[in-house]
Amino acid sequence: MTITAIHEYLINGSKSASLSPFDRGFAYGDGVFRTLAVQNACAHDWQLHFAKLVHDCNVLGIVCPSSQILLNDIDRLFAGNQTKAVAKIIVTRGEGDRGYSMPSLAQPTRVVIKSAFPSYPAEAFEYGVRLFICQTRLGFQPRLAGIKHLNRLENVLARAEWNDPAIADGLMLDMEGNVIECVMSNIFARYGQTLVTPELNRCGVAGMTRQRILELAPAMAYRTEIRQIALEELMDADEIMICNSLFGAWQVRAIAGKSWKAQSLASQFRTLLRE
Amino acid sequence: MTITAIHEYLINGSKSASLSPFDRGFAYGDGVFRTLAVQNACAHDWQLHFAKLVHDCNVLGIVCPSSQILLNDIDRLFAGNQTKAVAKIIVTRGEGDRGYSMPSLAQPTRVVIKSAFPSYPAEAFEYGVRLFICQTRLGFQPRLAGIKHLNRLENVLARAEWNDPAIADGLMLDMEGNVIECVMSNIFARYGQTLVTPELNRCGVAGMTRQRILELAPAMAYRTEIRQIALEELMDADEIMICNSLFGAWQVRAIAGKSWKAQSLASQFRTLLRE
Repeated sequence: MTITAIHEYLINGSKSASLSPFDRGFAYGDGVFRTLAVQNACAHDWQLHFAKLVHDCNVLGIVCPSSQILLNDIDRLFAGNQTKAVAKIIVTRGEGDRGYSMPSLAQPTRVVIKSAFPSYPAEAFEYGVRLFICQTRLGFQPRLAGIKHLNRLENVLARAEWNDPAIADGLMLDMEGNVIECVMSNIFARYGQTLVTPELNRCGVAGMTRQRILELAPAMAYRTEIRQIALEELMDADEIMICNSLFGAWQVRAIAGKSWKAQSLASQFRTLLRE
Repeated sequence: MTITAIHEYLINGSKSASLSPFDRGFAYGDGVFRTLAVQNACAHDWQLHFAKLVHDCNVLGIVCPSSQILLNDIDRLFAGNQTKAVAKIIVTRGEGDRGYSMPSLAQPTRVVIKSAFPSYPAEAFEYGVRLFICQTRLGFQPRLAGIKHLNRLENVLARAEWNDPAIADGLMLDMEGNVIECVMSNIFARYGQTLVTPELNRCGVAGMTRQRILELAPAMAYRTEIRQIALEELMDADEIMICNSLFGAWQVRAIAGKSWKAQSLASQFRTLLRE
């Protein structure tokens, strides 16, 4: 398989281990994941990523492997890699018998995967990006909102809605038409000196870079608001940017038919995020 | 691992194959499944189960393996088994690279698992069962409603809400308080000569036995209705039964504090379902 040829992975620290169909990550999507950049065997923003992984595991009642165990896996997998690469960490509840009941002595499964860093087009950073508005809406599930779990069929369906490589990401709305996030990123809208990002207490994934931007904003004299944003309100924003752990922040220049002029919100935050 | 010792499985027809962490069933829950009874290497209601598997695959745009391929797997796995056992069939989109984009040449993964038939208590059939009302509500997602996909965290969370072995299943409501299904079964309520089962166009799994009961009901002089049922209306039913492919139908004798007298709706349908 060509896929495995260009990736490497460790399952519970082993290169030769394999996944069982009894793993509840496979059976039910009963697990969580993280995607982060790694360079010179150093995992970017590790403390924050690990804290979020622990948080998300806790929501599902999964015992998260220790930071040391995960960093050991990353060290082994990325040793000698000087170019930037991507680590995806998946933690599942582990193997279980048939049926939804949680196994009483579940041994979590951890998978760490190394992938090439995506070859993002330079213009995404220099000029900005275009978003598509997805038809697939995010359903409300307060018990799972904000966490990056393995039940991601909504993202799969939404991502399948466009093929045009000129589209960087797809805007996802909730069932009531509020802006929530993009398929692969979180979103911020600027109105004057206020940065607004959607509330994620009913659906969506609260990404780590979103959290960092919220924390960095006051230093740039921005007030921040976490609240509902209807699509119409987003379209009236002075500036829009999207963010994730791999590309940092991108300026949004167009959504569907509307475009925005060149501005510097995303590049300012990219600089801060790198520091 | 004790789990694998009591089960056997085939991955793409092979006993020695293993799952890759790049399988999109594992990464995103990007797949569907079926659970059915098998006896003397004969899969009960195969035509109906296969039709539902194809339907569910189609909703996700997954190419379903042929009936012949799946029956071959079942033959090999269950050959010589005279006692009733359980087949779980999982079909995923197959392996893919990192990211939500569907692989252009995805080769679906099929897994067929043999498990022991559950040791249901005799009183569930003779006397009836008790239901718990789950706090976990089902979120609305019309694009995925009705299909038995691998994004099952809601069921996992709901099933974790009770431990009492006297509870047979958990009643699940939608976000508006309508009755949808149970964690492991579908539900019917009788009002006079009318059998009502919830509409599953916004959430829930449309099970194969639910379908069979809808088709069998007219022969028993029942009218059928597929519509919204609020919890209060369910509690006013003359009779209630739950159904799935393994136990057939069970009479519901109690939900939370309310109980129903001994009646025969479920045993009538169990007889018809066996024919």
